Amino acid sequence: MRMEQMALHTDKYQINMMYAHWKHGTHRSRAVFEAYFRKLPFGNGFAVFAGLQRIVDYIRALRFDQQTLDYLAEQEEAYDPAFLEELRAFRFTGELAAVPEGTLVFANEPLLRVTAPILEAQLIETAVLNFMNYQTLVATKAARIRQVAGADTLLEFGTRRAQEADAAIWGARAAYIAGFDATSNMRAGMLFGIPAKGTHAHAWVQSHASEEEAFRRYIEALPAQSTLLVDTYDTLRSGVPHAIRIGQEMAARGERLAAIRLDSGDLAYLSLEARRMLDEAGLPDVRIVASNDLDEHIIFNLKAQGAAIDSWGVGTQLITAADHPALGGVYKLVEHEQGGASVPVIKISANPEKVTTPGAKTLQRIVNRRTGKAEADYLTLADEPDGWQSQRLKLFDPLRPYHYKYVEDYEAIPLLQPVIQDGELARPLPDLAAIRAYHRQQLGLFWPQVLRKLNPADYPVDLSQAAWDLKQRMLHEERDEDER
Amino acid sequence: MRMEQMALHTDKYQINMMYAHWKHGTHRSRAVFEAYFRKLPFGNGFAVFAGLQRIVDYIRALRFDQQTLDYLAEQEEAYDPAFLEELRAFRFTGELAAVPEGTLVFANEPLLRVTAPILEAQLIETAVLNFMNYQTLVATKAARIRQVAGADTLLEFGTRRAQEADAAIWGARAAYIAGFDATSNMRAGMLFGIPAKGTHAHAWVQSHASEEEAFRRYIEALPAQSTLLVDTYDTLRSGVPHAIRIGQEMAARGERLAAIRLDSGDLAYLSLEARRMLDEAGLPDVRIVASNDLDEHIIFNLKAQGAAIDSWGVGTQLITAADHPALGGVYKLVEHEQGGASVPVIKISANPEKVTTPGAKTLQRIVNRRTGKAEADYLTLADEPDGWQSQRLKLFDPLRPYHYKYVEDYEAIPLLQPVIQDGELARPLPDLAAIRAYHRQQLGLFWPQVLRKLNPADYPVDLSQAAWDLKQRMLHEERDEDER
Repeated sequence: MRMEQMALHTDKYQINMMYAHWKHGTHRSRAVFEAYFRKLPFGNGFAVFAGLQRIVDYIRALRFDQQTLDYLAEQEEAYDPAFLEELRAFRFTGELAAVPEGTLVFANEPLLRVTAPILEAQLIETAVLNFMNYQTLVATKAARIRQVAGADTLLEFGTRRAQEADAAIWGARAAYIAGFDATSNMRAGMLFGIPAKGTHAHAWVQSHASEEEAFRRYIEALPAQSTLLVDTYDTLRSGVPHAIRIGQEMAARGERLAAIRLDSGDLAYLSLEARRMLDEAGLPDVRIVASNDLDEHIIFNLKAQGAAIDSWGVGTQLITAADHPALGGVYKLVEHEQGGASVPVIKISANPEKVTTPGAKTLQRIVNRRTGKAEADYLTLADEPDGWQSQRLKLFDPLRPYHYKYVEDYEAIPLLQPVIQDGELARPLPDLAAIRAYHRQQLGLFWPQVLRKLNPADYPVDLSQAAWDLKQRMLHEERDEDER
Repeated sequence: MRMEQMALHTDKYQINMMYAHWKHGTHRSRAVFEAYFRKLPFGNGFAVFAGLQRIVDYIRALRFDQQTLDYLAEQEEAYDPAFLEELRAFRFTGELAAVPEGTLVFANEPLLRVTAPILEAQLIETAVLNFMNYQTLVATKAARIRQVAGADTLLEFGTRRAQEADAAIWGARAAYIAGFDATSNMRAGMLFGIPAKGTHAHAWVQSHASEEEAFRRYIEALPAQSTLLVDTYDTLRSGVPHAIRIGQEMAARGERLAAIRLDSGDLAYLSLEARRMLDEAGLPDVRIVASNDLDEHIIFNLKAQGAAIDSWGVGTQLITAADHPALGGVYKLVEHEQGGASVPVIKISANPEKVTTPGAKTLQRIVNRRTGKAEADYLTLADEPDGWQSQRLKLFDPLRPYHYKYVEDYEAIPLLQPVIQDGELARPLPDLAAIRAYHRQQLGLFWPQVLRKLNPADYPVDLSQAAWDLKQRMLHEERDEDER
């Protein structure tokens, strides 16, 4: 996929900072940035990381072409022409570590870690967050919907209400990662290999003299993919009876009407009535698809009412993550080369949640070997010596360190894996089928109370003693400096 | 801009309906579709139409290339190869009429009207809605923010929280149409000619040994574009005093510190304190920029508290339209060629708001010549004879036709203008500067009570007698058919 001129898909302040570093000769100083979010969306107990494929494609294709350089030359900042020549030679030469797509992730843990000359690391911040924030948000929403839908078929139908074209296709992919079965968007189908599904709209019925004629002609053209939309005029008095007539004609020919679709009205009542009518007409294998502003709450309630719905078409609420339409992911400098050494850095804030945790870090998932379930995620400094994994581990709450427990028989699964090294792909990224399988496997690592959609249990994200000590020390140093 | 493989940026059901029409030889029958929304977003009294440039670019570039045809050939529907040859020759040959971008628009009036062979008109539905829905939504949100910001500078800062890349750039453009002054997204700047603005991030400060050194080095590199972010450590005890020292040094050299930026904390208090400190230090012309999850409500309240803020950076809430993240625009068949004649069609629904208004329509804005203000929007059937414009006009509420009034001295401004005719651009589209000017002019046509952000007055959208009669007749005919 072509990433047209994506080098400028960035905030201007990134270019300004790159320029100021270049002016002072500090642009090749090594920096470590980590991306994370501070709050889980939708009141959910976890998020589902997505966006890595897009981020990797973007980083590897990053170039400043002539049009881009010409545009930069016209800016009011009056960038030095030699800086533009530096950009003309730009390649990403650094390292990217990331959790795999489909991983269950939590607040305040690094999902991505970028180690690169600060010129490069700064440029990519905006786009990396743009992709990670949206795709992780939709994958998380999709996981909530999959949870209530059980084994039912889930169809992503949101393109017309998506926030422009990229959201439609990358949102379809994120939903597929987290358990949706298909999308209506054919471009997403073509680009990503997601099954594409669709039937007909009200306009098909309206463009014929009668509903019955419309149904018959649709089936004649597409006998194998026969879902009929039954609510153009009157669902139970017109749509379902006409569909039944067609279904019986098909059965007589040895064909099968696949499904009817309900797109308005009381879906609980209409589905039960339609089911009864279909069954009484000898069509028990005609399935019922429902759509109309569905989300996890409505599906949950419809299922609780015993609605006879086999497939759910979910649009607006999923593709816009309507009840929480932005994940507040941030990308923070945690370490920077100063005077030849890499020095941890901190950002203070009046709001304690906004204080950063200094130092390049690694992320491990601590899985109890006896239960097979995850106990906590555990952040260590990247330069801590290995070997702690074979010892009894003290896990304590970083905000309340007097709350702690010990785990003994555990596996520490490293989650931040090398993706790009020296600007090159470290290893091929998994395909979508592998990502989906991995995501399902991830769900199995967690207790149901973490996964439930309402009031889930908090899953701990803990710091190693060394990471916690470093943060406390730097907090106090900053405070002492303030007092002077 | 390249529209890669946008032919498949559509729901699969469109392709299925196109195929079924082609199978039956009805694919060249002429259809009229109208796009509109049923409910204004954000509780606002109007919406601002946007998205037309994108729609026109998309329609004119529509082609099915080999990759696309190969993908279609693999679908489970087993489309006839001759259909794929039909698609290979596809060009949009129809007509598009639309209201100009920047127009104030209302619920239940056609914003776009497509008249084309049904094969073509059906294909474009999904993408047209995708573009129109999102861009109109953001332009409307931006207009609300512009209304409370008065003459202050408004900056669009949302890329990192936008729903993927297209939303960032087209959202920036929509915001600019409705009165924003600049964007941080440089790609939007390059593609659309929107002024791009930016300063530095916390990372710039963190990547230096001290805040003061960071400020000084930033100013050395970019003296003319000098906005300093003052909240990395402590706004009033560290950031503002350091900025003042730099500002005084600059003043001594005959330069000027442009602004400081506040990005956290109590913006009312901090801006007033910072203003006082700057003024006392002899720097009354250093401006104050604020950001941090702003929207029209927060800006309104900060201004009511007398906050000393000159420029507002607005991100997440604008670019995702967070309090109403989808405009429910629909695209409905209103007329279709059957047996050689164009026949109006209707869609019935149990929900009266979802009943369509049959027949191809035109849209006029009725402006009272004495007040210069718009009285109502007025829908006529496209085939109604001209001449009514010179007569006394009866305006009645289509849901309560006994509510009516007469207007006499008025101008009827046609809003649906030809954009594409016979597949070709009818005339060049206006540039962004012209669209912005037109939008400001549009605002002047409406009474303040329609424009206010809280509990605005309803602006009437009325049907002509002929359009109303046709709808009633068709409703009763459908009902009679049901009873049989």
